[in-house]
Amino acid sequence: MYRMGFDIGGTNIAAAAFGGSMDLAAHKTVPFPKGASYEEVAALLAELAEDLTKELGCGRELIEVIGVAVAGSVDPKGEVVIHAPNLGFRNAPLRQAVQEHFPGIPVYMENDAYAALLAEYHLGALKGCGTGILLTLGTGVGTGLVMGGSPFLGGMGRGTEAGHMVLDYQGGDCNCGRQGCLETLCSASWLIRAGQELVKKEEGGLLSEKTGGDPQQVTAKMVIDCAQAGDPIALDIFNSYVEQLGCAIVSLVNLLDPEKVVLGGGVSQAGDFLFAPLRKFVEENSFFHYAYPIVPAQAGTHAGTTGAALLFQDKQL
Amino acid sequence: MYRMGFDIGGTNIAAAAFGGSMDLAAHKTVPFPKGASYEEVAALLAELAEDLTKELGCGRELIEVIGVAVAGSVDPKGEVVIHAPNLGFRNAPLRQAVQEHFPGIPVYMENDAYAALLAEYHLGALKGCGTGILLTLGTGVGTGLVMGGSPFLGGMGRGTEAGHMVLDYQGGDCNCGRQGCLETLCSASWLIRAGQELVKKEEGGLLSEKTGGDPQQVTAKMVIDCAQAGDPIALDIFNSYVEQLGCAIVSLVNLLDPEKVVLGGGVSQAGDFLFAPLRKFVEENSFFHYAYPIVPAQAGTHAGTTGAALLFQDKQL
Repeated sequence: MYRMGFDIGGTNIAAAAFGGSMDLAAHKTVPFPKGASYEEVAALLAELAEDLTKELGCGRELIEVIGVAVAGSVDPKGEVVIHAPNLGFRNAPLRQAVQEHFPGIPVYMENDAYAALLAEYHLGALKGCGTGILLTLGTGVGTGLVMGGSPFLGGMGRGTEAGHMVLDYQGGDCNCGRQGCLETLCSASWLIRAGQELVKKEEGGLLSEKTGGDPQQVTAKMVIDCAQAGDPIALDIFNSYVEQLGCAIVSLVNLLDPEKVVLGGGVSQAGDFLFAPLRKFVEENSFFHYAYPIVPAQAGTHAGTTGAALLFQDKQL
Repeated sequence: MYRMGFDIGGTNIAAAAFGGSMDLAAHKTVPFPKGASYEEVAALLAELAEDLTKELGCGRELIEVIGVAVAGSVDPKGEVVIHAPNLGFRNAPLRQAVQEHFPGIPVYMENDAYAALLAEYHLGALKGCGTGILLTLGTGVGTGLVMGGSPFLGGMGRGTEAGHMVLDYQGGDCNCGRQGCLETLCSASWLIRAGQELVKKEEGGLLSEKTGGDPQQVTAKMVIDCAQAGDPIALDIFNSYVEQLGCAIVSLVNLLDPEKVVLGGGVSQAGDFLFAPLRKFVEENSFFHYAYPIVPAQAGTHAGTTGAALLFQDKQL
């Protein structure tokens, strides 16, 4: 029997099948079809499931349970995507739409950051933690909180949205409709935008060289790599990013005084080049001047699908 | 038998004695002696206790327990004031210094916002709340969180400091050493500073009139009263304040999705003139576009001393 997890993000949709001890059996990633309706996305998940079962050489009858992680807020019952700015969904009854493609198989749905939290909490860096914070730094910024030793879905059950905490109340526009949200300053998208602007102005240094002057070629990894290679322009961007993310973490640790802060998502793969200056900034700037442990997520690239495949467990607690 | 509570704030020190059912028996307030050492403050508390027992016509033997609430962070054991920027204390072993004046009587110490939280949680607006936020808008901004149905002292026990969450990461200097903290934009002190600046420039309108042009005479209440009287200059200040406090609350509700937000401290006494536009702002700007209940604290002017007198209960849980 397999547990299947889907992770619907603003850039990609990932699908994975896991064995009973959460060993990865098969996985596939496709680009998120921008502009698609939630029904179209549900149909795409069914296709992906088909691909995975084919690869596993089995039929649908071996799918035990399905979990769907979504880059947006989900209602407390796990039925409706309330607001997913990066996917273009609002009040979309996605769980039922997916269920219709999988008669007889239990389908669970939650926020993708919550799924990533479950993966870290059950199998990764937040195992055994009493109060912990997970930030996933991708297209947007997802959050997971462990409070009182358990994954916390928000007091009213709608999720925790640190990505939409205010970091610069008169700052730049966020997809959520507000200004200066943490996400506008701490996501991988900020690194890309900052790089693109300089390449556009033909002031991108090594970035201009690597992209042949085409701003659309800039990636977050490229900005980080150029910074690490010592390019002063990319380094300026990177240092600003460290300060912005540092302020975001200071905000969170000042409020919750957690045991641990865990960073996931693409940007976190920068390793100590990111973590070392970030730890220093937070120790120097937090209210308690404390060296909060800031560590990389362990569930890695499959965190979202792993957490999605673990949702059934969480819902049965 | 009486329970005695002290509340040490940046402006005043309040003392109160309560009966067994937390009925207020006697109280006294004196200005905070700016620049005093923690030992001098401990001696002042002993004098205040003397005054109260005299008023009650009893001796010290009728003091059952003493609680001290401090406008600053306190170590997890309740012994040391780690950092109290508005009092000028850092790493001050205040509990023991107070204890020395009261041999044989148990003395407890905590952050004043936590004391206010206990008052609201046991006797006020946060009774029975699962996830709730208390902000006390005074000289600084204190925070209390109810998480999982219990008062939350931070994951590492050092307190919750929403006042030092970042609201404007490149903004004005805060007493904590950082820039753009919530406290710099949402405290009563911000209202006073904004009013003072205009009076100084002889552009204070009704405020200039009421203060005879002396910036030192500006109070937060005066700014609010002038705004409520329709003075356009004071109203401008007040509207900015509502937006700033609104952004702070949006930040917090986006992170925690609480059942309730409770506002205490002097500014909260502005009543619906403050609460009505604030509720509208938060409903329109929060991630979930939800009309979070934002209500005044109920424990009132004696919240700090009440919570301090209740500390012994909390510590015995």
